[in-house]
Parts: sequence; structure tokens; C-alpha cells
Amino acid sequence: MRPRRIELTGGPLRRWQDVNRTVSLPLAIQWLEKAGNIRNLRIAAGEADGDFRGPVYMDSDVHKILESAAWELQHAPDDAALTAFSAGTAQLLERAQQEDGYLDSHYQVASPGERYTRLVDSHEHYCAGHLMQAAVAAHRGAADPDGRLLAVARRCADHLAAVFLADPGPGLDGHPEVETALVELYRATGETRYLELATAFTERRGRGLVGRHKHGERHRQDHLPVREAPAMTGHAVRGLYLEAGVVDVAVETGDDELLAASIARWEDMVAARTSLTGGLGSRQVGEVFGERYELPPDLSYNETCASAASIQWSWRLLLATGEARYADLIERTLYNAFGAARSADGRTYYKGNPLQRRPDHADAVGDPRCRDEWFYSACCPPAVTRLVASLEHYAATQAGDTLHLHQYAPMELSLPFAGGELGLRVETDYPWRGQVAVTVTHAPDEPWALALRIPPWSTSTWIEAAGERGPAAPDESGYALLRRAWRPGDRVVLELDMTPRLTVPHPRIDAVRGCAAVERGPLVYCFEQADQAPGDAVDDLALPPDAAFEEVDVDDLDGVGRTVLLRTAAAAVSGDHEAGLPYRTHGGPHTDDTSRPATATAVPYFQWDNRGDGAMRVWMPLATY
Amino acid sequence: MRPRRIELTGGPLRRWQDVNRTVSLPLAIQWLEKAGNIRNLRIAAGEADGDFRGPVYMDSDVHKILESAAWELQHAPDDAALTAFSAGTAQLLERAQQEDGYLDSHYQVASPGERYTRLVDSHEHYCAGHLMQAAVAAHRGAADPDGRLLAVARRCADHLAAVFLADPGPGLDGHPEVETALVELYRATGETRYLELATAFTERRGRGLVGRHKHGERHRQDHLPVREAPAMTGHAVRGLYLEAGVVDVAVETGDDELLAASIARWEDMVAARTSLTGGLGSRQVGEVFGERYELPPDLSYNETCASAASIQWSWRLLLATGEARYADLIERTLYNAFGAARSADGRTYYKGNPLQRRPDHADAVGDPRCRDEWFYSACCPPAVTRLVASLEHYAATQAGDTLHLHQYAPMELSLPFAGGELGLRVETDYPWRGQVAVTVTHAPDEPWALALRIPPWSTSTWIEAAGERGPAAPDESGYALLRRAWRPGDRVVLELDMTPRLTVPHPRIDAVRGCAAVERGPLVYCFEQADQAPGDAVDDLALPPDAAFEEVDVDDLDGVGRTVLLRTAAAAVSGDHEAGLPYRTHGGPHTDDTSRPATATAVPYFQWDNRGDGAMRVWMPLATY
Repeated sequence: MRPRRIELTGGPLRRWQDVNRTVSLPLAIQWLEKAGNIRNLRIAAGEADGDFRGPVYMDSDVHKILESAAWELQHAPDDAALTAFSAGTAQLLERAQQEDGYLDSHYQVASPGERYTRLVDSHEHYCAGHLMQAAVAAHRGAADPDGRLLAVARRCADHLAAVFLADPGPGLDGHPEVETALVELYRATGETRYLELATAFTERRGRGLVGRHKHGERHRQDHLPVREAPAMTGHAVRGLYLEAGVVDVAVETGDDELLAASIARWEDMVAARTSLTGGLGSRQVGEVFGERYELPPDLSYNETCASAASIQWSWRLLLATGEARYADLIERTLYNAFGAARSADGRTYYKGNPLQRRPDHADAVGDPRCRDEWFYSACCPPAVTRLVASLEHYAATQAGDTLHLHQYAPMELSLPFAGGELGLRVETDYPWRGQVAVTVTHAPDEPWALALRIPPWSTSTWIEAAGERGPAAPDESGYALLRRAWRPGDRVVLELDMTPRLTVPHPRIDAVRGCAAVERGPLVYCFEQADQAPGDAVDDLALPPDAAFEEVDVDDLDGVGRTVLLRTAAAAVSGDHEAGLPYRTHGGPHTDDTSRPATATAVPYFQWDNRGDGAMRVWMPLATY
Repeated sequence: MRPRRIELTGGPLRRWQDVNRTVSLPLAIQWLEKAGNIRNLRIAAGEADGDFRGPVYMDSDVHKILESAAWELQHAPDDAALTAFSAGTAQLLERAQQEDGYLDSHYQVASPGERYTRLVDSHEHYCAGHLMQAAVAAHRGAADPDGRLLAVARRCADHLAAVFLADPGPGLDGHPEVETALVELYRATGETRYLELATAFTERRGRGLVGRHKHGERHRQDHLPVREAPAMTGHAVRGLYLEAGVVDVAVETGDDELLAASIARWEDMVAARTSLTGGLGSRQVGEVFGERYELPPDLSYNETCASAASIQWSWRLLLATGEARYADLIERTLYNAFGAARSADGRTYYKGNPLQRRPDHADAVGDPRCRDEWFYSACCPPAVTRLVASLEHYAATQAGDTLHLHQYAPMELSLPFAGGELGLRVETDYPWRGQVAVTVTHAPDEPWALALRIPPWSTSTWIEAAGERGPAAPDESGYALLRRAWRPGDRVVLELDMTPRLTVPHPRIDAVRGCAAVERGPLVYCFEQADQAPGDAVDDLALPPDAAFEEVDVDDLDGVGRTVLLRTAAAAVSGDHEAGLPYRTHGGPHTDDTSRPATATAVPYFQWDNRGDGAMRVWMPLATY
């Protein structure tokens, strides 16, 4: 259960939220006008003329911005622009919706009469799912005071149930998402048909009902039933959204077998298909999960939407199992792959999030290696805004008499507890410092437990409570449990070990053999050209295996904000190559045998690409002197 | 100048030619019927009804098979099937050709009236170019006895000159190829307007005349004029075909600046964009050249057409400069990237030629990692058949009083020389053995020079001639020159060092850091699962830095044919991984620290994937004990 109120009060996550509301959402709302999303709906409502513009899933961007606005209005209920956008868009959706509840501007405007004729590509259920999620968010917050948006979403869901619940009918959507949305709508409304429809969609998958696609059934997760598929395969975002639905259905129906199947896929994904940053979907062609251990730093796609979807999946598994490993992956993904997707100023986004950028990236043709304000296929920016807007949801949960703190950030939280109120204040400079102070501000009379997640990267963790300081002893789930009758003013101090770590890859990850990465706390670091000494090309630097890092606090790094840089002695090799093929007989003379001492400076990956478009590396060669 | 007659008499190249004529070409001719290529032309000729089938460049496959048949008919003039196909297709093309010389079944059948309206994608000049190359091949051989095909090609070229010579008119084709074809047609006919048109097309490139494309002007080599572009960029096959035309134009017009620009791009490509196998175009998205040193073994596209086009470009540079480095790259490409494209039985083809295949490749979605008989976009199979059919062309040239042997294979050759005849017989078990015996079979009275290419991989090379044996002393161009008055029966024996070599990559090639590959003579080796001991997964094997290879002669390896396997002591690590992320703090405990002794067996890369679809690696981790 989620606490009644959590407010992030500082640190990078709060900074992301502030930028989200003041910069990113106003810009996104402009783009929904410029790109034609709103106009498509006006045409569908009969209020404008013209042709449909953009890809078939244009409506989903509207829904996702609507969801983002709903969460942000919880932080700033007086925001007039967001209020106006939310109310106006809900009314527009209501007017655009057809009598039978169908609502999809592409099929209403560009392809009337072709409703549900090509579900493999049409995204009709996908768009409907995002509409439901927007409505649930608005319903939970204060963004849908007259219940208009929820009513639109219910009519849409009722329509889907009428068409698809009794039998597969026209089939299954090629892009999962409606499954988890239907369960959320069920939770918000209590309407069991929504859960039944989510269950049906989930169970029907893997039986060839999606229809033919050039990349085959695997690409659309239609090759094996969700109870049987052993591993994540195909389009990463689709697969991850599907898993969120699988877990939702399993939890709501008490289906342990279904839950176990999803967990097995999560374990395989973590063990062999996850970038160090938490990025997922390593293959650019088809935007798919690659083979086991196919994790190239330069070529991995690591779509921003996949990072967000991974967090949603892990969050559901965390709630279902109470195991900290899911919160660990959320933290890794949030602070690294996801955090890097948007520029520090909140204006531009990556769709793909590689772990390396070469100096000549601008000369090549292919996947762009720089951020952009918006995209023709604009799924990723709203995926960032809606997750950032709801970040505090992932920080803490209550289960019985235990309050779990999953993520550490400056925050205040309160919840009703045993007839009274439980309140906490968290003070910390996390992720820059490892000390997290938790003060009880309100406490019921009854004893209760505070559960603190102990991240696996902290090899020396201490807890001070009630004047006693000792090594943290997490239970099997990965949480340190402190159970007592708390009193207001009681204070617990968690001390996490933030010593910079040199991390090496499993030997099967071919693409980064002989390399190491630098991590500190939850942050993966990277080496950007902007931070190196003149003449030291990032691609020429190598780290000593015994690298010792100097921590450099910076209050405001060129508009990036607060950071801690890491600096170490390194070796610089001689760089480029004489003529001829870049291959030599082992043991023969190398031009690069000579190396000179240098200094290498690293910046948190989530802060990269805010200071020029130079080279960047997460994985650095280990110098073997 | 090419010798009047060269016949390959044995070895792998001859085997490829035999399979080419008896298996691959008959199969390709069936596919031209099945896939609709021939039918498209019949519809264009008004002899059949129906819709155009396949991609816009379907005609080019017909032309390329016609060219292949023309060269093969020089080996087997009595081949009735090839004769019938050649004659029948020439007649069909004649009937399909429009009055003004235009011939492109897609635009005649599917898009009449849209001729030259979308040259960025239409491939109209590309198809015309392949028609010209087929006609030149047939003209040089005996496959166009009545001159019908040459007349069709000339009418087509005359038409192009009428439309495009005076000014750019509708623009430039997005797929270069017609440039080199026009120069070849000029050489065959003496018609200078063809050379002028080739020059115009070449010089107009890089000025935005190709038109807009989603990947941008760089993808179509239209971003910079060919005199200015510093490096290969964009679609690899297009870029390589363009370079063949650039060199042709430079040579025929005596334009040293133009030649130098092409050579500079070749040097950059070789130094930083070429796979060990000679494969080119490392990025799958867009099928493009990647960034400098972006050479992933698993993900490199290395299109078969690019291997063939690279050989065509290097061949022209070899003729223009006389420098052995171009023949070296031809040999590397021919015996490795190109040689692996077709299965040993001549039936199936790779479009992409990776240097690694993982054990679970069949579970993933994306680029297929197995060969196929034909493709919707079937450019690659005919690229193999036409190059294999003309392989002997690349073996030797005459320049003044010097006969250069560029490639070593059992062969007989003869040419007119100083009023007499010069004849040689080459006897060798190359590439399995390093001894190459050259016997003079006919000699004019005058002295002349035999120039033997000394490959750079042969670190100890000896030559025995006229009873004297000494170390080979190549000149600056890379050839050992033996000048004398030769007599029939004179014999020269070249001894190349075929000791297996452990090859390491340049440190900037991130994707294969810490690895080594095995080479022997011109052959790159690979480790296939089929050759390893039970229980030894290819991905678990590591080579000792001092690996000593046992050479195992095999007369007929499971239908692959003659080979030499290489066997070495190796280390096997413990394989897969415990739960959790595949990243660990450096210096911490590894499950993989333990390794056990094993044996690793390698097979020539060009013979891979003929014995099951298991894992394969060219680059192997070096064990660091």
C-alpha cells in the first residue's frame, strides 16, 4: 500500500520533478499542438478539417501527457496551465469519443471502417490503455474533479469488454499495455470485467492471435504463452509492458504460477540482458532484446520507454514479493539509463541510451547520438514526464505494520496507521553522500517496523538508532528491519558505503571484455571528453586496475547541477594508428605499446551530454602495465 | 591488361566456379522465374498480364545473373541451359525495351509516367548499369554472338546520355553503379559519350542532387563531392560501387586528383572500418559504414554485396597503381568475408557476414544468422555468382614487359607477348600449402619479368629460380620481380610462410578487446561448435597467448571439401553465471576464476556454417593465466 502522502523535498529526483513541471510539460503540450496530436482529436470530434497527421499511436502521447499533468497537479494544484490542459483535453476526448465508446483518432479520421482490422500494428488497445492510465492518475489526484476523464476511460473499457471479452474476436494488439491499464482501472473502479478482460488478453497471448509481422511472432511476444516463455524476447518495450500486466493479473487473481513465470523472465533478463545502467533492449534492429550477453556499449538501443517500463515491472514484482532486488534494479535504472534520457534543462530527450559515444559519431549514418525535443514517433518524452511526475510513488510502501523505505531521497511522508498517523522526514544528500537520516515526526502508540533497503553495492553499511550503532543486518528480502514503539523525534541514521567501485563485466559480455566501469553508490559514471585534459582523447585513456578515485564535489556543474566528479590517475596510449589494417600478429611491435601518465575524470552517467557532443565512455579499458 | 586466357585448374576457387555453374546458376535462374523477375519483363514486353512483383530493382537481378552466365559460358561454352537462358533473356530484354531506349520493368509496369521522378530510391540507373555490365561481359565472352544484348545496353546508355548528359535533369540515382558500368561500356565500344556521362554523374555527386532520404544525404554519398569526401560513409554497397566508378573515371580521364581522393578513402577504410575478414559496412541500421573502429564481430553487417564491391574497387586501384596492398585486400576479402557468403554446396547465401554467432541466436529477433536460398531483396546471391564466374580475371595482369601474379591458385595462363606467346602453369596446393610453383610453358625470345606478390602475412618468404634459392625481396609495390629471358620449362618456386598466426586487434576496436584471432596464410579461422569436444561451449573457450597450433589436413570435411583444421591447447572457463547482474566489483570473487584445460579447434571462416547452426567465433578471448 502506498503512503497517503509523500513529498520529495530535495536532491536530483526533486530537481527532475521541478524541471518536469516548469519546462518539460509546457514544452510537451506545445508539441502536442505542433505535431498534430490535438488537431487529430479535434478532427475526430468534428471540430476541425484536414488529414490525420503522424503515426497511428498519436493519441497515446496525449494520454501520457495527460497522465503526467495529473501527477504534477498533485505537486502544484494551482498550476493554471496544467489545469487548463487537463480539463480541456478531457472535454475534447469526451467529444471525440464515439457513441459505442471507441476512441482512436487515427481510425476515426484516417481509416474509418478499418477498426480492429490490423491489430498487429494498429496500437488501438495500446492507445486505449494509456487513456485508462491517464484517467486513473487523474482520478487518484485532483485532476479530474468532475469525473469526466474516468467516464471516458470506462466507456472505452466497456466497449473493449463488449468486443473482446467473450472471445478473441478481431485478435490481440501488437503492442501490450492495455493489460496493466485494465487492472489499474479495475483497482480504481472495482469493475471486475476489466480484470477479466486483462486476464483474457494476457492468457490469449502466445497463440498466434496477434497476426503476421515482418519480424515474426517473437517480436510481438506472440510465440509462446506467458506461462511458458522462458525469457524476454522481441520488442523490448512491448515485452516489458506485457510483464507489468502479467504481474498485475497474477497478483489480482492469486495466480502464483503466472507470477513465477514472470519472475523467471526477470531473472534471466537481469543475469544476461541488462546494461550496467539498467538499459534494456540491446539490439537496434527491431528495438529488441538481443541474445544472452549481447550488450554492446555503443550499439545497445536501451530505449527510454524500456527503462520506464522496466521500472513499472520491477515495481509490481516488489509489491508482490517484498524483495529488495526489485527495488535495487529500479534504483539502478532510475539513476542511470532513465535519468540520462532527458537533458538537465528538461528540454531534450534520447530515445536510445548508449553507454558509449565515439568522437566521430556525427559523421556516421544511423541511430542519432544526441537528444532531441520531440520525435515523429514521440513515445519517449511522455514516458519520461509521466514517470518523473510520479517518482515519489516508488519511494516507500506500507505492508501490515511495516513501512518499507525503498528509495532514499530527501522527503516527508505520512500515512494513517492503527488509527493514528505515522510521519517520517528523510534528510540526506543522497546519492552524493551515503548518510540517510530518518526522523519520526508522527507516531501511533503501537509498535511498528521501519524497513530500510540495504543496496548490494554498499559493502559496509551501518545503522545508528536509539543511540546504538552497528552493522546493518538485512533480512532475506534485503531490508534491515527496525521494530519498536517509535516516538516523535526518534531518529535513525543509515550509513551507506559510497566508496567508488571499479566494476568488471561477466566474461561472456564480449563487447566490454578487458574493461571496467566506475560506480559510486547507485550511480554509474562515465568519462566525457569535456572533463579530460586537453589532448587526452577519451578513447585513448585506460584505467589502472588499482585506480584510486578522488571525489570532487561540484555545486553546479555548468548548469547540470550538483554533482560529484571522480578523478583518477590513468594511462593514455598513443592513439591513432599507422597505415594498413588495424590488426597485428600477437607479440609483434605495436605503435601503442607506449603509454604516458594522465588523469581521467568521470561524471555521473545521468548527467552526461549536457556539455558538448564529444566522446563518452562508461566502459574503460583496464591498463595492463 | 588482362591475359588472353586464364583458367583456374584446381583449389577452392575452381571449386567455387564449378559449383557456381552446376548448382548456383541453375538455381538462380529458377528463382528469377519464381520470384517474378522474368515475368515482370514479360509484362513490360506486353507478353504477360499481371502486376509487377518485388522491389523496384528486380531487373538488376536478371542482369547480374545474365552477367554471371556470360562469364561461366567462357568456362563451358557448351552449357546448353546457360546458352538458352542468355539468348532468351537478351531477346526478352530487347522486346521489353521501350522505343527511346528506356528499360526498367518496374516503371514500365507499376509506375508508368513516373520515370525518373524519385531517383533517390528508384534504382533506375542502378538497373541500367547492371544491364551494361551484363552486356559487356557477354560481349567479351561468347554469350552475345549476335550482339543483341550489347545493342540493348547501348540503346539504354544512349537514352541516359540524351536525358542526363547536358545537365543534371531529373537528378542522380540514389544507388551508384551506373558510373563504373558506363566506363566499362565505353571501353567495350569506344563511345566517348558514355565516359562523359560517367564523369558527369561522378562529379555531380555530393551536391544534393540525389534528393531527400530518411537517412539523409550522407547515406546516399550526396553530402560532399567525391573530390572532397575524406572517408567512406553511408550505405556501404552504394559507397563502394561509387568508388569503382570514381577510379574508372579518374583513370580514363587521367585525373590524378580524383584518384588520390579515392585512395585516401580506401586508406581510411582499411585502417579503421574493415573487419578482419575484409567485411565492410559495420552498422546494420541503414547497412552503413560505422564510426572509426566500430567493428563488432556479432553485429557487423558486412554485406556480401559490399565484399564484392570492395574487390571491384581494390581491383581498379591495383590496375591504376600497381601496388600489392590492393591485391592483399582482394585476397583477404575473397577468401574470408566473400568466401563465407555462400554455402559449400552452392545453394544458400548470407546477406550479412558476422564474425560471431551466439548459441541462442535462433531465439532472438533481428538480423537472421543463417543462409537462405534467395531473398525478397535478392541483391547478394547474384553478386556472388557474377564475381565467382569471373574470379580468374583477378589473378594476373600484364603491364609492359611484366606479368604480375596477384593471386595464387592452380592455373594455366597465356598471353600474346612481343609477337610471340607467353604461357605459364601455376601448380600449388594454395591456400592449404605455401608453395607455389610457376612453370614457363611458352616464352617469347625477349626477356620479360615475372612479378610475384609477396603477401604481408608471410614473414619468411623464399624464392627458388634457376637453381638459386633466396629470401624474397619485394619492391616498393610489394612484388618480387624476376626479369630474364625465360625458356619453356623454366620453373620458379615461391615459398610462403603458412605458420598459423595469433592476430590481435588495434586497441581502439572496442568490441574485440582482449581477444585474438587465428590466421593462416590468407585464411581467417573461426571456432565452430561442431568442432569442439562435447561439453566445451565455444563461448567458454579462451586461447593461450602462446598458442601453438597443430595443423590437421582433412581431405573432405563433411561435404565442405579439402581443409586444414587448426588445433591448440586452450582453457575452458566455467561458463554461465549465478543469479543477479553480470557485473562485479573488480577483485571480488568470480565464479569464472576457475578454468580447466581444453582443446580448441578452428576451421577456415569461409567454410563455416556448413555443419549445423551452432555458435561460432572468429575472435577468441585470450586466456590470462
